[in-house]
Amino acid sequence: MSPVYSEIPGGVTAPEGFFAGSAYCGIKASNPDRPDVALIVSPQPTVAAGTFTTNRVKAAPVRVSAAHLRNADIRAIVANAGNANACTGVAGIETAKRMTRAVSSKMGLKERQVLVCSTGRIGVPLPIEKIEGTIGQLVPNVTRVGSKAAAEAIMTSDTFPKEIAVEIQLGGKTVRIGGIAKGAGMIDPNMATMLCFVTTDALIEKAELQQALSVSVEHSFNRITIDGDMSTNDTVLMLANGLAGNEMLRAGTPDFEVFQRALDHVTLSLARMIVEDGEGVTKFVEVCVNGAASFSDARRTSEAIAKSCLVKCAWFGGDPNWGRIMDAIGYSGAKVREELIDIYYDGLIAVKGGMASATPFEKLQQAVAQKRFRVTVDLHLGTAEYIVFTTDLSTDYVRLNMGE
Amino acid sequence: MSPVYSEIPGGVTAPEGFFAGSAYCGIKASNPDRPDVALIVSPQPTVAAGTFTTNRVKAAPVRVSAAHLRNADIRAIVANAGNANACTGVAGIETAKRMTRAVSSKMGLKERQVLVCSTGRIGVPLPIEKIEGTIGQLVPNVTRVGSKAAAEAIMTSDTFPKEIAVEIQLGGKTVRIGGIAKGAGMIDPNMATMLCFVTTDALIEKAELQQALSVSVEHSFNRITIDGDMSTNDTVLMLANGLAGNEMLRAGTPDFEVFQRALDHVTLSLARMIVEDGEGVTKFVEVCVNGAASFSDARRTSEAIAKSCLVKCAWFGGDPNWGRIMDAIGYSGAKVREELIDIYYDGLIAVKGGMASATPFEKLQQAVAQKRFRVTVDLHLGTAEYIVFTTDLSTDYVRLNMGE
Repeated sequence: MSPVYSEIPGGVTAPEGFFAGSAYCGIKASNPDRPDVALIVSPQPTVAAGTFTTNRVKAAPVRVSAAHLRNADIRAIVANAGNANACTGVAGIETAKRMTRAVSSKMGLKERQVLVCSTGRIGVPLPIEKIEGTIGQLVPNVTRVGSKAAAEAIMTSDTFPKEIAVEIQLGGKTVRIGGIAKGAGMIDPNMATMLCFVTTDALIEKAELQQALSVSVEHSFNRITIDGDMSTNDTVLMLANGLAGNEMLRAGTPDFEVFQRALDHVTLSLARMIVEDGEGVTKFVEVCVNGAASFSDARRTSEAIAKSCLVKCAWFGGDPNWGRIMDAIGYSGAKVREELIDIYYDGLIAVKGGMASATPFEKLQQAVAQKRFRVTVDLHLGTAEYIVFTTDLSTDYVRLNMGE
Repeated sequence: MSPVYSEIPGGVTAPEGFFAGSAYCGIKASNPDRPDVALIVSPQPTVAAGTFTTNRVKAAPVRVSAAHLRNADIRAIVANAGNANACTGVAGIETAKRMTRAVSSKMGLKERQVLVCSTGRIGVPLPIEKIEGTIGQLVPNVTRVGSKAAAEAIMTSDTFPKEIAVEIQLGGKTVRIGGIAKGAGMIDPNMATMLCFVTTDALIEKAELQQALSVSVEHSFNRITIDGDMSTNDTVLMLANGLAGNEMLRAGTPDFEVFQRALDHVTLSLARMIVEDGEGVTKFVEVCVNGAASFSDARRTSEAIAKSCLVKCAWFGGDPNWGRIMDAIGYSGAKVREELIDIYYDGLIAVKGGMASATPFEKLQQAVAQKRFRVTVDLHLGTAEYIVFTTDLSTDYVRLNMGE
């Protein structure tokens, strides 16, 4: 399918009517001179959607935002980096609420009209007074070009801010979708979290927005793995204010399909940036499994490969070690028949019918020597397929994660 | 419970009537001057039991041995290192059969009275002629003190041979159990496999032997994880020849219980040796989860912790990073209530009710600085418990596994 969207600058402030900005309150221990609080604001009413970590240990802001998201009209998202407000008990919940109150009181809103996110160290009380003392200046200073400032403020171990925006045409109206994100690299001790905020000026109802976002997240953030560890704070939030003037988007219509594809592009682009920016990462690898008997088998197989320490170490060393891939396929739990399995590195067949192919080893080495390559597995048992985006496992990854 | 067994020397040849030995046939590429074929022989009839990898990609010898194990009277186990005979198709099956035939023809046995194992490179045809040319000298040269020679011959990346034996008293008779094993370290490209061979002179029927072995494997080899990758060749085999003259062991009797505990000690000791000898390993860690709502929850929780790259990197760095342990508990899929979770490093409480305890960080660092320590998690939801033996994740692990 050819793209029906075009990329535009502006990130979360590309859509009409959204403002963003950042401030410095001094809780980002690793970078104390960097902004650490981000704010995204919509003066117009919005409908909101979100997806949250499925980790049963959930950070306080995840619990508070999930509750607030039930409201009809969200007007702001506030997020800090440097402290995750996770494993902080009942006091942490109160702290997260105070963070929303700091924004709502300055904007004349109800507390429940503000969503809140935190990322950073786990298990340390969030110095809420520092944030409260900063929000007062931040609220009046958000701008229509503040996306990058917000993207920078939520960075932890990220080496670059992550933002993207696209526009589409719906019934003669220009509709924009923009997003910012921060990464899954886990460098500092107790550092965690992927955060993503998406805005759109499309006119859409809450249920349809949630449906579109859930689908996009399933095809992007749920497909990336660096170390297989899911954080306590992972959150994707989306706001839609309807300012584009399009006809109300209805699920199942061609317009909705165009919107979905544009949103998919936004989330997938941000997800790729997160993987590529994982600390210690030297390779970006797409693991595609085709021909599985079921969707769940395709997913299990690709995730087993993408999470195998042995496979990832081999990639780091430029070793096209298909034996380890066969091994991971075998223990994935998926239905497989060894003698039917084919494995490719990019276009080169490495395994044919469960055995070494005739491809010279040097050719396979050349494929794995690249910074980006694709591993394709065909199980020849059905038509289900799945793709996961992953990385190698490097000595630097270990070094960066071995603590203080 | 105080031990009812005593350790004795002799490994698999400690029990009456078992012979072992090794030979050199030149297929251990990494160590071409080292013995690479092992043989264990019982001139007496035996009953046999075994457990095999649950990986759906199974090496040829696994398939052949599983079929032969259905026979009543096994007389020999032959094993080679250097080549796993895995991902070798129909030809590999024929090769594994030829390996059993090489032994049976020299001993006047039926092919199906011989079990076969291979360990080493995956996907390369096994040079069976080399093995066939060696078996002729090996068969007459097995001895009553050949356990260590056999243990050395099956080594791949292992740095020391692994053997143990114990004796127990059953109704005034001395019964012995002995074992050898090789490790799960995966150093060479495509290198895999844990192998373990156990012998006993106890009189026991096949079904009871299988029951006892399955229980012991569940509490030992199934509880160890170095990198979470299960090999295509993992095999545990056990032979019992009845020469001790004890009364037939019956499940549910006190004697059977004594036998089980002694066998547990043999398999657990060998499993620990495998973990401690994992290449690149600097820490040996016991992860104990108590208070789970179900056995399956206890297992999931301890395995999630024991397999977390982030947790293991932190241990390597001597960082008592309990936030990452909380994170792993949360995504394990087990039923947990964050506010009830306690975590200990050895006797020191690190997390109390889901939050940082008052224990000084330096004290926790001292615990993690040791070469061996125990992490205990209490979920406070029930009475189920589980223990997993694991390691840290070191830069050397990555270096040793990054290929040629």
